Amino acid sequence: MTKDYVTGLEVVLPTGEIIDTGTKTIKGVVGYDLTKLIIGSEGTLAVVTKIRVRLLPKPAGKKTMLAYFQSVNDAAEAVPEIMHQKIIPSALEFVDKTAISCIRDSFDTIKRETGRSAMSIPGHTSALLIIEVDGRGLDHDVKLIKEVLGRRNVIKVIVAKDEKEQDAIWDVRRALSPAITRIAPKKINEDIVVPRDRLPDAVRMFNDLSAKYSLKIIAFGHAGDGNIHVNIMIDDSDDDEVSRADAALKELFENVIALGGTLSGEHGVGITKAPYLKLELSKVQIGLMKKIKDLFDQNHILNPNKIFFHGYFI
Amino acid sequence: MTKDYVTGLEVVLPTGEIIDTGTKTIKGVVGYDLTKLIIGSEGTLAVVTKIRVRLLPKPAGKKTMLAYFQSVNDAAEAVPEIMHQKIIPSALEFVDKTAISCIRDSFDTIKRETGRSAMSIPGHTSALLIIEVDGRGLDHDVKLIKEVLGRRNVIKVIVAKDEKEQDAIWDVRRALSPAITRIAPKKINEDIVVPRDRLPDAVRMFNDLSAKYSLKIIAFGHAGDGNIHVNIMIDDSDDDEVSRADAALKELFENVIALGGTLSGEHGVGITKAPYLKLELSKVQIGLMKKIKDLFDQNHILNPNKIFFHGYFI
Repeated sequence: MTKDYVTGLEVVLPTGEIIDTGTKTIKGVVGYDLTKLIIGSEGTLAVVTKIRVRLLPKPAGKKTMLAYFQSVNDAAEAVPEIMHQKIIPSALEFVDKTAISCIRDSFDTIKRETGRSAMSIPGHTSALLIIEVDGRGLDHDVKLIKEVLGRRNVIKVIVAKDEKEQDAIWDVRRALSPAITRIAPKKINEDIVVPRDRLPDAVRMFNDLSAKYSLKIIAFGHAGDGNIHVNIMIDDSDDDEVSRADAALKELFENVIALGGTLSGEHGVGITKAPYLKLELSKVQIGLMKKIKDLFDQNHILNPNKIFFHGYFI
Repeated sequence: MTKDYVTGLEVVLPTGEIIDTGTKTIKGVVGYDLTKLIIGSEGTLAVVTKIRVRLLPKPAGKKTMLAYFQSVNDAAEAVPEIMHQKIIPSALEFVDKTAISCIRDSFDTIKRETGRSAMSIPGHTSALLIIEVDGRGLDHDVKLIKEVLGRRNVIKVIVAKDEKEQDAIWDVRRALSPAITRIAPKKINEDIVVPRDRLPDAVRMFNDLSAKYSLKIIAFGHAGDGNIHVNIMIDDSDDDEVSRADAALKELFENVIALGGTLSGEHGVGITKAPYLKLELSKVQIGLMKKIKDLFDQNHILNPNKIFFHGYFI
């Protein structure tokens, strides 16, 4: 995660005072870790005005692979199995069937408008994985990954031969967010995380929720981290659909917590997830966090309605 | 650092309440990061009763190297130059001349007592580096490192051919701490950190302090992180030596901060470094940290004299 590479911050406190947190060195254990406390605090503790980051050398090489599956379960099962090979991919993206149909539509539009052809996705594909490994000795990783994919009934595996083919694979993933936004601008977009081994359970659960509440749910994202973007597609002029979506969302979050997961891997709590905070954190934890908020920002002048909910929504 | 791999804690708060911080997932951004706030708080905020850690696969291979230098400056200069090759060694240890003479004495004792011979260190060695790289394609790293060492007038480079030879190299480093403790049980042992590029300046500064205050100073440690253990050897029955050591220590810390460094990379502040905290942290930062301490531990029942100093020592 990016925050692991942040070694220091310049921040303005709500009092107007300016502090430099962290160190200019790789290691440092003097005093409390204010850097990590402020990162992820969603602007509720201080205003960040400078960020110092640690850089890593560019990897010696990379291999990008695209794998099509007939069964969504096989794709989901392949994810923890790849990690069990003691491989840490630099990217491992999952895309479900509904998302794939959005990508196809998007590619069709591009072809119609520009004449440019993108990757053609086999008709019976129910899920796909994009897998990227970097470093040295990558043929070894590619071989192990192909073996896992083979055991999981993969339809086809493409290994990019050059940068152009790598780009064509990533175009599949890049097409996704704009395509989804185009068809449902009011979608509810969550970014839950489950332990990687529970990914197949999570994917089954998304399908169950979709059927139970008659909602179109699109799931895709950073499967290697167990971090999935769950998009509930709604037409916000349809009151019944909106209320079914609210019920589905609550059940989604409850199920994610039951799987050992967390409500958010990247987006944070903000305003819309604040009512659900107590599904994940204990009363004591929330109390402690609220006291930290009060300590930094006595008058609640920074993002006063973020993270902590003051109503009785759930 | 170990803390980068800690994903959650079970802690008992000073109120007796128990909380689980962090997540069971790789990612998670719900609420403030209490895990990292408590790690490094030196037992002043809560009592840690469980630690959840992330594990990495064992590296495919490793190469261990030992390099002897005639000039301590050449050894220190080699450290940032190795990192500039875009290599991140899994270990890069620096040992100075005084430390080497301790190791020699220790090896002599072992030979006399057990008949076992350890590594023989060339007579005109003023500093040595132990360098370890892991992963795949290591011959490439070894070649680049040897080129750097060659440019820095290395006397001799040993690349371990097997696990036994790797062990023999690490015996050199392992002999050090017991050897130093044996000759000066009352040594002052600090673990300052400087930005890696300032390591040659730091090493010169240790020598200058040693001459200025007529003190034996031994420096060794994790040079790849800029983290050096500076041992000021004292006979605590010699009042004059003790007071010279106090003056040298204060100057050491001031110089470390001037080099962009930090007072401690691993040991923490504790009681003995508490009076120096304000050399590194601003009044506002210390004030904020003290308020966090009060928030968690209203009655100061946990490690009450650690980190924050209440006297007027400096």
